[in-house]
Amino acid sequence: MKMTLPADVPADKEKAFIENFEKTTGGSGRLMLFAGDQKVEHLNNDFYGEGIPLEDNDPEHLFKIASKADIGVFATQFGLITRYGRDYSDIPYLVKLNAKTNLIPYEAKDPYSQQWLEVEDVVRFQKSSGLDIRGVGYTLYLGSEHEHAMLREAARIVHEAHRNGWIAVLWIYPKGNFVKDQHDRHLISGAAGVGAALGADFAKLKVPYIDGKLDTEGLKEVTTAAGRTGVLCEGGDKTSPEAFLMELHEQIHHGESRGNGTGRNIHQRPLDEAIRMADAIYAVTVKNASVEEALQILEGNTKSN
Amino acid sequence: MKMTLPADVPADKEKAFIENFEKTTGGSGRLMLFAGDQKVEHLNNDFYGEGIPLEDNDPEHLFKIASKADIGVFATQFGLITRYGRDYSDIPYLVKLNAKTNLIPYEAKDPYSQQWLEVEDVVRFQKSSGLDIRGVGYTLYLGSEHEHAMLREAARIVHEAHRNGWIAVLWIYPKGNFVKDQHDRHLISGAAGVGAALGADFAKLKVPYIDGKLDTEGLKEVTTAAGRTGVLCEGGDKTSPEAFLMELHEQIHHGESRGNGTGRNIHQRPLDEAIRMADAIYAVTVKNASVEEALQILEGNTKSN
Amino acid sequence: MKMTLPADVPADKEKAFIENFEKTTGGSGRLMLFAGDQKVEHLNNDFYGEGIPLEDNDPEHLFKIASKADIGVFATQFGLITRYGRDYSDIPYLVKLNAKTNLIPYEAKDPYSQQWLEVEDVVRFQKSSGLDIRGVGYTLYLGSEHEHAMLREAARIVHEAHRNGWIAVLWIYPKGNFVKDQHDRHLISGAAGVGAALGADFAKLKVPYIDGKLDTEGLKEVTTAAGRTGVLCEGGDKTSPEAFLMELHEQIHHGESRGNGTGRNIHQRPLDEAIRMADAIYAVTVKNASVEEALQILEGNTKSN
Amino acid sequence: MKMTLPADVPADKEKAFIENFEKTTGGSGRLMLFAGDQKVEHLNNDFYGEGIPLEDNDPEHLFKIASKADIGVFATQFGLITRYGRDYSDIPYLVKLNAKTNLIPYEAKDPYSQQWLEVEDVVRFQKSSGLDIRGVGYTLYLGSEHEHAMLREAARIVHEAHRNGWIAVLWIYPKGNFVKDQHDRHLISGAAGVGAALGADFAKLKVPYIDGKLDTEGLKEVTTAAGRTGVLCEGGDKTSPEAFLMELHEQIHHGESRGNGTGRNIHQRPLDEAIRMADAIYAVTVKNASVEEALQILEGNTKSN
Amino acid sequence: MKMTLPADVPADKEKAFIENFEKTTGGSGRLMLFAGDQKVEHLNNDFYGEGIPLEDNDPEHLFKIASKADIGVFATQFGLITRYGRDYSDIPYLVKLNAKTNLIPYEAKDPYSQQWLEVEDVVRFQKSSGLDIRGVGYTLYLGSEHEHAMLREAARIVHEAHRNGWIAVLWIYPKGNFVKDQHDRHLISGAAGVGAALGADFAKLKVPYIDGKLDTEGLKEVTTAAGRTGVLCEGGDKTSPEAFLMELHEQIHHGESRGNGTGRNIHQRPLDEAIRMADAIYAVTVKNASVEEALQILEGNTKSN
Repeated sequence: MKMTLPADVPADKEKAFIENFEKTTGGSGRLMLFAGDQKVEHLNNDFYGEGIPLEDNDPEHLFKIASKADIGVFATQFGLITRYGRDYSDIPYLVKLNAKTNLIPYEAKDPYSQQWLEVEDVVRFQKSSGLDIRGVGYTLYLGSEHEHAMLREAARIVHEAHRNGWIAVLWIYPKGNFVKDQHDRHLISGAAGVGAALGADFAKLKVPYIDGKLDTEGLKEVTTAAGRTGVLCEGGDKTSPEAFLMELHEQIHHGESRGNGTGRNIHQRPLDEAIRMADAIYAVTVKNASVEEALQILEGNTKSN
Repeated sequence: MKMTLPADVPADKEKAFIENFEKTTGGSGRLMLFAGDQKVEHLNNDFYGEGIPLEDNDPEHLFKIASKADIGVFATQFGLITRYGRDYSDIPYLVKLNAKTNLIPYEAKDPYSQQWLEVEDVVRFQKSSGLDIRGVGYTLYLGSEHEHAMLREAARIVHEAHRNGWIAVLWIYPKGNFVKDQHDRHLISGAAGVGAALGADFAKLKVPYIDGKLDTEGLKEVTTAAGRTGVLCEGGDKTSPEAFLMELHEQIHHGESRGNGTGRNIHQRPLDEAIRMADAIYAVTVKNASVEEALQILEGNTKSN
Repeated sequence: MKMTLPADVPADKEKAFIENFEKTTGGSGRLMLFAGDQKVEHLNNDFYGEGIPLEDNDPEHLFKIASKADIGVFATQFGLITRYGRDYSDIPYLVKLNAKTNLIPYEAKDPYSQQWLEVEDVVRFQKSSGLDIRGVGYTLYLGSEHEHAMLREAARIVHEAHRNGWIAVLWIYPKGNFVKDQHDRHLISGAAGVGAALGADFAKLKVPYIDGKLDTEGLKEVTTAAGRTGVLCEGGDKTSPEAFLMELHEQIHHGESRGNGTGRNIHQRPLDEAIRMADAIYAVTVKNASVEEALQILEGNTKSN
Repeated sequence: MKMTLPADVPADKEKAFIENFEKTTGGSGRLMLFAGDQKVEHLNNDFYGEGIPLEDNDPEHLFKIASKADIGVFATQFGLITRYGRDYSDIPYLVKLNAKTNLIPYEAKDPYSQQWLEVEDVVRFQKSSGLDIRGVGYTLYLGSEHEHAMLREAARIVHEAHRNGWIAVLWIYPKGNFVKDQHDRHLISGAAGVGAALGADFAKLKVPYIDGKLDTEGLKEVTTAAGRTGVLCEGGDKTSPEAFLMELHEQIHHGESRGNGTGRNIHQRPLDEAIRMADAIYAVTVKNASVEEALQILEGNTKSN
Repeated sequence: MKMTLPADVPADKEKAFIENFEKTTGGSGRLMLFAGDQKVEHLNNDFYGEGIPLEDNDPEHLFKIASKADIGVFATQFGLITRYGRDYSDIPYLVKLNAKTNLIPYEAKDPYSQQWLEVEDVVRFQKSSGLDIRGVGYTLYLGSEHEHAMLREAARIVHEAHRNGWIAVLWIYPKGNFVKDQHDRHLISGAAGVGAALGADFAKLKVPYIDGKLDTEGLKEVTTAAGRTGVLCEGGDKTSPEAFLMELHEQIHHGESRGNGTGRNIHQRPLDEAIRMADAIYAVTVKNASVEEALQILEGNTKSN
């Protein structure tokens, strides 16, 4: 996987972008994104309740995992980073620039998740805080009546990230009353193409499924349609680690995805197990580990590094 | 309770922020917020009518209380501060940056409470007036169709406050047709997490109740979900002082709340009683007073300082 | 009535504000506002038709009255001032910064009256034209779904006026489908409190009536709730001069209003009579004249100055 | 008719404004506005079809007429001026700053015609191109739910035009579901007053008709209500030249209108006839020609100059 | 066909504009626009499925064609250009500044396709990347309730392009519930006139059809109404090459169109065939080739250059 140096990275930021990209993807061109933006997106549903360890209710749990596990980036909101950043300055961060709650059902009103802060705010913050920020992220909902506002914000964010030598990750989900099946391969391929047209380095997308099973051929339509934009497969609900890692391996090595964005399947575990799960995911995503090797890491039989 | 120095407080404002925070919380990390923003939020309902002393109808009543009682901050609108500030320059102020009236029911139209002035306006005002302004506040309504606009304004306000060495307090209330029970602990925990994701120093939240009684376990879910953002419990309707102080004590010492925002339970009393009530609340909140000690202050048997 | 020097008047504008306020209120702290903004608000209804002298149809009628009568300020739109200002440079002006027509009924659509020009535009205009501009005015409709936009514009206008040493007058009217009785004292008291929270020097409000008669006690609730913001009573439809002046006297001396905003009761008369009516109103409002004395002025038996 | 020098024309632009106004009105204070903005407003309806000469379909037809006929200004969109301006640099232009199509019926949705370019864009363009631009124009629809946005844009445009020494013309039409009869004199008088309150030099208005015949008395109500803002009567659908010129004469000499805005009655003719029609209209409007004299010009028996 | 030098091209950009225009139109004044913006507009529908070669699913297919075929410009989104631009620096680009998906049917909600980036962003990008960018494009939907926003954006984009010496192409499509037949010649003529009023160099329009056959007379109404704005005929669905080239020839030589915008009829072919198809279209459009000659190019019997 050759890295694409976007043409809107200016000459004086080329070196920074390349180093940033190589470090973040471990030289593999693939990204293991630890998703920690659900405190707004899902309120407290992902962090407290049956089957979730109590420690997950404390936001610091996310930072503890992110600081000790192998990850590409830890993606979360600016505010959360400001509250823990001084104690967790070793984490590679990706600042998620927008978020919405789940209180209004998609069928009731079309979603609009507006940008909270400007890229230049984050750039200035990076300089003043010295934190290890690698890029920015943004979610857009195609098919919403507010699609136009999110397309504009996304296009600007990607371009501004590149101008600063940062990577840009877009979460692209078709939503709203005119979207029938969000796991349809053709629809997801369309979302992939939108990510390419917006110039994203990575696009986090829904995964194509047929009868609940990964549609590997469909994923190839998706990853091809994305062109030079890397496709990150959504981690989704918590499942068994084995099933998760097997599908992940299949996504990457047969579906040609270029990474994954995983939250619940990591943080809804006790700290030690969460770290090992992240390490296993990282090994498959970035280090070409087999499922077997990854399961060894998960079991704690192998150190990930 | 260790103070969190937010990572977006720049180096040249660190000292100011720390002094500001320590002074405002009396070194306890807990905030007694005297809420005086209801002249817009509730129009004249809280200030005139049965069971309310006549003097409460004059806005100066709030300033008299705030200048003589022990409080953390007096939170009210900019305009009111401008009209009384020269005569009450000793009050520690928190400028509430938005407000709406209660004329439109929440069921009829989703609320939008827009920011009135920029943080930089208040900063400039602080410098020109010399008033003792400690920070800014903002209310956001999750679940409103205008949620996106308020999330953006809130995120920017918190960040700008920190850049100036000020504290930021968010009032976060889920509202609208999709919110069933605003005293549900899990929903309030979600609001707490949003406050954390926005980087607030304190979040003023609804209190979880079961059958009208404080749900202390629920409050712990809330205060844990808030992470390093301190939870302020809403004071609510006027109740008996004893019941109020007992619940307050329970909130802090068993629910791990980090303060309270109280208006009506203070100002709907004659000046002298109002001052003693504020002093009692402050004693419990900041000085680790027992309910007994607080009641002594309320009775006037003990000086609060 | 002590003048309040708002805390957001900067040091280098304090003298200007005080002189401006004293001159405009004739040292009484009370304002006689000659309202001439109805050409937009009511289209031509107030200026042409049965019982209205023909000369009132020409906008210059307003300027002739304003230049010859005793008034505090003549409140009208910027554009009208630009068309007559060079010939009427002696009038004390208050620039009304927004206006809407009456074509859409309040029941059909919630009103939004947007700001036309910025305060800084008017400040620059004052400097270049040399006209005697004393301040700015703005109308806001509480209870409209656009309330948030008007609250924001109002808050900014008041602050910017003060920063320039000018006075700010807000017209505050609850409107829309959720407002039952706009002459309810408690509702008007709420509007008064909003005026205070916005920092207005004066708030022009509806007058509380019971069965069509002035509710003096109710007006005291209103004027107390307004705090240091002076309450201007709306002039309303044209009535008999005697009834008008008697009520005005009662409003001021028993209701503790601090002035009035009168349009139709002045300009819907031939020039000479209109001037005497304005003089009579001014005498009651500013000079503590009795109703008897005011009626003498109206009759032309006494010179007002 | 004395020219009004608006008070917001700054000292260094007074001479420019006066020369501009005098030249544009031929010293008469009256404006013959050749309206060429219908390519957006009416799409191709006015330019192609039964009874319209084929040459009218080419936009250059408008420029040919404007460059050869006697006119005050040719009012059209910026873009059209840019495409023909280098070949028609002798035309006095008025840049119409907004326009909308007629695809959505007024009964279906309230109209909003947004400003396309800023006055400063046009000022810079005038300087760089050297074209003979005399001012700017803008249409506003009173009674639309978007009225507030158009009132604001109009107020700003008039003021910015004056600051540059230019004249400002407003097209003011009450529209929407609450407007019963747009030819009602009282309603049009209201629109005239709005034009005055916005500070326009000229307001192009509907003409009051009773049973399809000019209501001269009504027009006097209108022109009086407009004060120092000159009323331009809308030219309307194509009619017989005689009827048109007779009504025009009546409008000016008995209704006290100060000009007209005519499009279709000019351009829906072959070039030569169109020029003569424009000359005839100009003669009546600016040169006090009688209807007889104007008809002679139209017939080609008299040269207009 | 004489080139029009728009009057808003400033003196120091005249030479650049002329060279740009001449090079882009091959001296013919006619534009062959290779449309590659459908990855957003049609999601993946145009790129994957029955009858489409697999290679079309990869966005690079578009760049391969554009770099090897004769084209005027390759029109696509900024982001896509940034991802391939460093490897395809020889392509003449036109940056399409807005786009929307097809998820919401036009009957369900009126379309709004908002501008993503400013012209100045693209200008800065052109300078920093050195890519061969010739101009910008924008789509507007007349008859949408958001028409006003798109008219404003379009007007500004055209003007800013000219100020930079670039050409501006507008895609103008009447859409929404009030548009009956989008292939109606009179309606398309109206859209052409709007393009002229906006100052566009070229307007890409629907083609007038009667019973599915080109309405050549109708097209002449359209191209005349467009004035000096060149009309580009929409390429539309994929048809037989012979039919396509014959209609193209007819459009240009009898309908007086000034080019075409073709996407699917080119890229939905294997690379080699796609290049020859583009070459054939270019030959007809720019080089006055006959249909016979164009078919020879398509067959590969004649080299296009």
